[in-house]
Amino acid sequence: MAKVAQARQAGSLIESPDITPEELQLAVRNHSMPLEALRYAITPVGLHYLLIHFDIPTVDVADYELTVAGHVRKPLRFTLDQLAARPSTTLAVTLECAGNGRARLSPRPMSQPWLAEAVGTAEWTGTPLAPILEEAGVLDGAHDVVFTGLDRGVQGGVDQYYERSLSLTDAMRDEVLLAYAINGRPLPPQHGFPLRLIVPGWYGMTHVKWLRSITVLDRLFAGYQQARAYHQRATADDSGVPVTRMLPRALMVPPGVPDFMSRTRFVEPAMHTIEGRAWSGRAPISGVDFSADGGASWTEVTLDAPVSPFAWNGWSHRWGPTAVGEYELCVRATDAAGNVQPMDQSWNLEGVENNAVQRVHVVVGAAADRQEPADSR
Amino acid sequence: MAKVAQARQAGSLIESPDITPEELQLAVRNHSMPLEALRYAITPVGLHYLLIHFDIPTVDVADYELTVAGHVRKPLRFTLDQLAARPSTTLAVTLECAGNGRARLSPRPMSQPWLAEAVGTAEWTGTPLAPILEEAGVLDGAHDVVFTGLDRGVQGGVDQYYERSLSLTDAMRDEVLLAYAINGRPLPPQHGFPLRLIVPGWYGMTHVKWLRSITVLDRLFAGYQQARAYHQRATADDSGVPVTRMLPRALMVPPGVPDFMSRTRFVEPAMHTIEGRAWSGRAPISGVDFSADGGASWTEVTLDAPVSPFAWNGWSHRWGPTAVGEYELCVRATDAAGNVQPMDQSWNLEGVENNAVQRVHVVVGAAADRQEPADSR
Repeated sequence: MAKVAQARQAGSLIESPDITPEELQLAVRNHSMPLEALRYAITPVGLHYLLIHFDIPTVDVADYELTVAGHVRKPLRFTLDQLAARPSTTLAVTLECAGNGRARLSPRPMSQPWLAEAVGTAEWTGTPLAPILEEAGVLDGAHDVVFTGLDRGVQGGVDQYYERSLSLTDAMRDEVLLAYAINGRPLPPQHGFPLRLIVPGWYGMTHVKWLRSITVLDRLFAGYQQARAYHQRATADDSGVPVTRMLPRALMVPPGVPDFMSRTRFVEPAMHTIEGRAWSGRAPISGVDFSADGGASWTEVTLDAPVSPFAWNGWSHRWGPTAVGEYELCVRATDAAGNVQPMDQSWNLEGVENNAVQRVHVVVGAAADRQEPADSR
Repeated sequence: MAKVAQARQAGSLIESPDITPEELQLAVRNHSMPLEALRYAITPVGLHYLLIHFDIPTVDVADYELTVAGHVRKPLRFTLDQLAARPSTTLAVTLECAGNGRARLSPRPMSQPWLAEAVGTAEWTGTPLAPILEEAGVLDGAHDVVFTGLDRGVQGGVDQYYERSLSLTDAMRDEVLLAYAINGRPLPPQHGFPLRLIVPGWYGMTHVKWLRSITVLDRLFAGYQQARAYHQRATADDSGVPVTRMLPRALMVPPGVPDFMSRTRFVEPAMHTIEGRAWSGRAPISGVDFSADGGASWTEVTLDAPVSPFAWNGWSHRWGPTAVGEYELCVRATDAAGNVQPMDQSWNLEGVENNAVQRVHVVVGAAADRQEPADSR
């Protein structure tokens, strides 16, 4: 099995800043949110970031059932219609991939090579999970609640269905939803049709797509995506700290116009409104700072109210470059729990929780030759 | 302007199979269609491939107007409501990026690093262009019709709005639409809201998004995206052949389940239905062949009717690997004009029109350890 052995595995460390063909296969399938989409308080569906570990499964809704079983008094089954007939809640929730920023690390852990834009905010509609667990009657000694998807594949040498768990306490929180709609429409296949778990505040790996079952365990869940993947660890021997809630991050819409290939921004020498969003899953955003000199000096920006208690805040800042030349624009979010984005990322083996400040390289002045559009002549 | 000079420019040639950080910036913004989405005759919006040269512009529909002017008797203006009140047509159209397959070339032209999946089929609703040009009264001596978008950026050192042209003859074809809806809904921002040109059969660069104006010229259009980019040429001095209609291509849904990182497929030793789609913008698809031995031998597959005269055909094939081991699955489309997909790609400077056959590496047999899902215990 030469080719299989040859392929670099998830978790290998890459010294070069260049991206391997294996990483490219993931980069062309999955996508982040183009930064100009920060303009939308609610991200249009096709612009919301997407990470799919295995393949998108096909689901015939006529055959679909969610099972709730395990360490419960009364196992339950629900069709999609039965779930949709239950009390419903709509919540705007910001979701970010735990590996966002991974491609900026050196050496770089082999996995999805995100830059900084693996984020999105959607309005999820679903039914709260807690009353369903109450109906099932969780028995004494219950520990973890496992969420199993319909998506199957191999990771780390383990053939598995995608599964993640929550502690019973976290699973019983009011805001945890079984969502069947996004932005007012049924889930599209890539966002987990027909049903997805939504756990506001947590990184994306928690929000299990294509949810087929909920299993209450009387012990710790030791599945691959829970016990091995998604840990903040320095070495393979390190037992590590599980990845849970999102650290703060602010992103700006890059001003001006881009160069197609380098994505360098060309900006007129004038006053500009720099705008963006900031979020944290740990506490409300308490402030966002802007720098036009690569972080040497900072000014506090104007912060809007959050879109929801579980979604990002808009912010804006007036910036007027006084001289033609190059600038490095940065933004930095702080949350009410005292978490601040670092200027440089501390390294970890999986490349998770990378919330270093965004840096946008800007050239103030004319780009080059100008092609007058046909309609101006 | 050190960083600008340092950045590799579109069109540079890269010897290494590894992807540069500049290419990654495009790969995380744009995305192809995950191959399992070949299951859908009509691609869900968020799964349709997307290539955006510059930034997605914001458009306030209250301010929006399409202008039709230039070498015409009576210049016209239309609001979106006025366009939507005109006769409408809905067409299923397969769109593919002209650079699809570029990342497989060696050396590799610097641009969006597509593998093989930069494709999608949508139902576009709009009003035919020809009657609008007739109302405007194209004058004698008209040559090209230029379509200008609202998206602006720098490419090849030229600050430009995205613009492409068609000959008057091509622009007057019945199937050319000004589309304001996709899959029955208004265009989302990333697909050209509020209006997009649709030219069935042509590669994606023709279907100008965020269309703001149509300008009839009494001469050849010499804009960057028309005269410099999108040519099949061997060297920079070569005047080249313009890229127009799509060459044939077939793609399969990779069978079995994937390894997360290598995307190697693990398949049970049993009978499988291999399915996929095939299309050509040159002529109807006349046949699709399947190979399980890397192209050494071929079998003709079962071909369905096309989804529309301008969209792909479904196809399927029964395959039962007789032995555990590794296989290289290939599919090859032929169209009625005699165009056949090559096994190996002939090289060109921009990496356009790469329609070499797809190769899917498959391992028949068990993957590895198996994690029983929580709901099976």
